[in-house]
Amino acid sequence: MRATIMYGTHDVRIENVPDPSIVEPTDAIIRVVRACICGSDLWPYNDMPSSETGQSMGHEAIGLVTDVGSDVRTLKPGQVVVMPFAISDGTCEFCHEGLPTACVHVGFIGNNGIPGAQAEAVRIPYADGTLYPLEVGEDDALMPSLLTLSDVMGTGHHAAVVARVRPGHRVAVVGDGAVGLCGVIAAKRLGAEQIIIMGRRPDRIALARECGATDVVSERGAAAVERVVELTGGHGVHSVLECVGTGDATLTAIEVARPGGAVGRVGVPHYEAIPAAQPSFYKNVTVGGGPAPVRAYIDELLPDIVEGRIEPGRVFDRTVDLDGVPDGYRAMNDRESIKVMVKP
Amino acid sequence: MRATIMYGTHDVRIENVPDPSIVEPTDAIIRVVRACICGSDLWPYNDMPSSETGQSMGHEAIGLVTDVGSDVRTLKPGQVVVMPFAISDGTCEFCHEGLPTACVHVGFIGNNGIPGAQAEAVRIPYADGTLYPLEVGEDDALMPSLLTLSDVMGTGHHAAVVARVRPGHRVAVVGDGAVGLCGVIAAKRLGAEQIIIMGRRPDRIALARECGATDVVSERGAAAVERVVELTGGHGVHSVLECVGTGDATLTAIEVARPGGAVGRVGVPHYEAIPAAQPSFYKNVTVGGGPAPVRAYIDELLPDIVEGRIEPGRVFDRTVDLDGVPDGYRAMNDRESIKVMVKP
Repeated sequence: MRATIMYGTHDVRIENVPDPSIVEPTDAIIRVVRACICGSDLWPYNDMPSSETGQSMGHEAIGLVTDVGSDVRTLKPGQVVVMPFAISDGTCEFCHEGLPTACVHVGFIGNNGIPGAQAEAVRIPYADGTLYPLEVGEDDALMPSLLTLSDVMGTGHHAAVVARVRPGHRVAVVGDGAVGLCGVIAAKRLGAEQIIIMGRRPDRIALARECGATDVVSERGAAAVERVVELTGGHGVHSVLECVGTGDATLTAIEVARPGGAVGRVGVPHYEAIPAAQPSFYKNVTVGGGPAPVRAYIDELLPDIVEGRIEPGRVFDRTVDLDGVPDGYRAMNDRESIKVMVKP
Repeated sequence: MRATIMYGTHDVRIENVPDPSIVEPTDAIIRVVRACICGSDLWPYNDMPSSETGQSMGHEAIGLVTDVGSDVRTLKPGQVVVMPFAISDGTCEFCHEGLPTACVHVGFIGNNGIPGAQAEAVRIPYADGTLYPLEVGEDDALMPSLLTLSDVMGTGHHAAVVARVRPGHRVAVVGDGAVGLCGVIAAKRLGAEQIIIMGRRPDRIALARECGATDVVSERGAAAVERVVELTGGHGVHSVLECVGTGDATLTAIEVARPGGAVGRVGVPHYEAIPAAQPSFYKNVTVGGGPAPVRAYIDELLPDIVEGRIEPGRVFDRTVDLDGVPDGYRAMNDRESIKVMVKP
């Protein structure tokens, strides 16, 4: 089959690799119906050391089950499923507590040698725990939005949950990528009254407004903080969704938070320490977040997609086949595209 | 009257200063019935630059109201009151939300030029909002425990609340000072099943055990983390109360937290950035805390003191008069005393 392999910085290739097959009795094989390129894939795209073996890429997909191991009980060939980005057994204490991204058997698909989903097919360990069955056909019009349940919509929702978005809250979303846009959708869905998108790219800002953003702050650093404080009557926001992953973005997130507020970080952190330890302390601001337990959020988010109340699939502004994946990486990296869907 | 003035490192003097008087109509004057020395007073005791004017010290007290301004409505001369360490107006949005330490009129008694309570008397701004009336006489046997409502018990409770202590939780308390000990009391009160005190001084550890600690970890750094993980079946604790305020203690706090856990920091931070931004992210550990809204916690904690269910006054192991205050600082700094009560 064909799959996407990254060999180093800006070096993404489509190659022939062996077809996946059942290894453990708890495995399933899915044919990839839709996959996509993630903002977090751009980190290695820009800093991966050259590798001879490469890394098979892609951690978001909708799949069609084609084969299951002998211990798989909830899935059958022909089933359409969401593939969350994290492998989880569905039975450990963390899975039971709603944190499958801390599963004792966790693994991140398309990372650390685990084969990825920007491919024709992929092997899924702990298939019963990992995959989420859908009641749709593989050409359903909702595919783009359903695909976001594998990562970005669940991740934006996680930021909003950790940032304790409540009805009536003032919210800031740091970052106008696909996760930031899903964060806007999540904040609106949870009842936020004011949603300030902090970003500067006109296409994304326009989409953010359509998704529910009430205000836009395009400044950066101190000027951005000043603007948010001004927009919020002088105290900042209750909830901040940090959807970038840099130290600067995290600093901004803490600085725009209101006393007693909360920051939900979902941008993969490319910093060693959380800045502003004293300002966050004196304001009693809580900083939380991490890899979103998207598998656990599907029950809550799916009905809103199916019934048309949210449309996170709008973050996709380009669709490519597998041959188009390398240029998809380039387009997202050049900010030509918000998020690229892959139809293998 | 006589008051405690700090002029620099290890330079604490008892001096004659003008009696406090009503300045604003919302002020009250209290005669100090009991005050105490705080672990946080030891920070300036060890690093205050030499000052000609000095800082009047002390932010914890039980007082007897002796005079009130014309706008004070809830207090009368003769009333015994708890003086929380923060001035709060009781009417702003933050006070209404239960965060008086973010009051729009906040000030910290005995800090930044505001006169302190290790003195015969003190002026209290926004007396209606700041002071909490008690139904006891000034020689009540509960005085030591009631005095802890002005800071340490409320602060230990805040750490526990922010760290989301729940019935059945495993908890670690980093630091065996008075706040750490109150953190143990708070964790037990909130139903923790396992309470690991991380400290090494035998007198404090013994008291921690009497207050509810189930385990003791006296190692430091990586060895301490390993020991906590071992004691908790391999995953760490749900809730960590950080009661020290150093970067090392905060690192340990994050490292002993279980995935999905929370750290409540109440040690005044002497570090610029919160360490381990990536481990805390990958574990989905939340870090929160700050100056405890102790005024808002009194309603909840007072009945447990009055009815004898908790006895946080046990953290006091020495009582001095005002003349004894300088040696009280020395004794706490030399770890001869856990916490010194002052009876002016």
